[in-house]
Amino acid sequence: MEKEHLFEETISSEQIYDGRVVKLYRDDVVLENGEKTIREVIKHPGGVCVLPLDSSGNIYMVRQFRYPFGEVLLEIPAGKKEPGEEPLECGMRELGEEIGASAKTYSFIGKLYPTVAYDTEIIWMFLAQGLTFSGGQHLDAEEFVDVVKMPFEQAYKMVLDGEIPDAKTQLAILRAKTMMEKEKK
Amino acid sequence: MEKEHLFEETISSEQIYDGRVVKLYRDDVVLENGEKTIREVIKHPGGVCVLPLDSSGNIYMVRQFRYPFGEVLLEIPAGKKEPGEEPLECGMRELGEEIGASAKTYSFIGKLYPTVAYDTEIIWMFLAQGLTFSGGQHLDAEEFVDVVKMPFEQAYKMVLDGEIPDAKTQLAILRAKTMMEKEKK
Repeated sequence: MEKEHLFEETISSEQIYDGRVVKLYRDDVVLENGEKTIREVIKHPGGVCVLPLDSSGNIYMVRQFRYPFGEVLLEIPAGKKEPGEEPLECGMRELGEEIGASAKTYSFIGKLYPTVAYDTEIIWMFLAQGLTFSGGQHLDAEEFVDVVKMPFEQAYKMVLDGEIPDAKTQLAILRAKTMMEKEKK
Repeated sequence: MEKEHLFEETISSEQIYDGRVVKLYRDDVVLENGEKTIREVIKHPGGVCVLPLDSSGNIYMVRQFRYPFGEVLLEIPAGKKEPGEEPLECGMRELGEEIGASAKTYSFIGKLYPTVAYDTEIIWMFLAQGLTFSGGQHLDAEEFVDVVKMPFEQAYKMVLDGEIPDAKTQLAILRAKTMMEKEKK
């Protein structure tokens, strides 16, 4: 392979906004042709989503009002990583908080960069099996969700029919489907 | 279905930052329990990605330095919608700009909300077939990409092996794979 020419170098970085969810930076950078420009970057601690699948082939999702869209969306349980938290640890915590469950096994099924142009967010995806429902949700203040149980195959069809726009939920379901098909063979 | 209780209402909206890519707002909102809180929202015009597939089963991607990650990523051609631009129109433009191609047919293969918690971005996905390579790229200033051609099946395997972290690229390839499997039957 030829020497990598694709790069940008940071000259300086300025924090524009330090919010509860969004930390915004504006950096001066040098491009590969020597020209200067600015890059706006959202710094995000990363998140984790968990697809909980029970022994009857049902999955558990949450319906939640998503303010940027003004819509109630169907998503698998997910949340932001706390400082220093490992992805798996975060996934276990979110599964407990959002649907009141724990799982015997967690299988890593991939990660995604949702917004590569201007956001550092990474989302790790896990399939959770061997579910135990221990004692209800314990949501964050300001978090309101309804739990929805449905057959995995129905959710898979909803993804293909465009009824689940959330990227992490689509990907986790499609990746899990691929794994299941492979195991059948 | 019971009456929808999941909602949040905007009291006021303040623009915090009006950048080149990122427009950040901080809104005061009322939650369903009557409590007030703030929601930080990135407003984004939306984007389009195109999976270009030729008659020999090859696809065309671009390698591009992505500043938030400090990594060169492999992605299908994509870009932001211009004001008033339709998704298909944007996809045709980006296909021309990034890989110098036009296509006979564009099939809509779904849309995704990459970052539902704090960003209004929507990405539309198209499969482009019947490709004509007309005359090279004409990239935006400050845009540097290398075009990569590879068999669709190789890219599909890379998605499953976790070698393509970009969400839109993963989803477009998985959705296209599902379509192709269905057509085979």
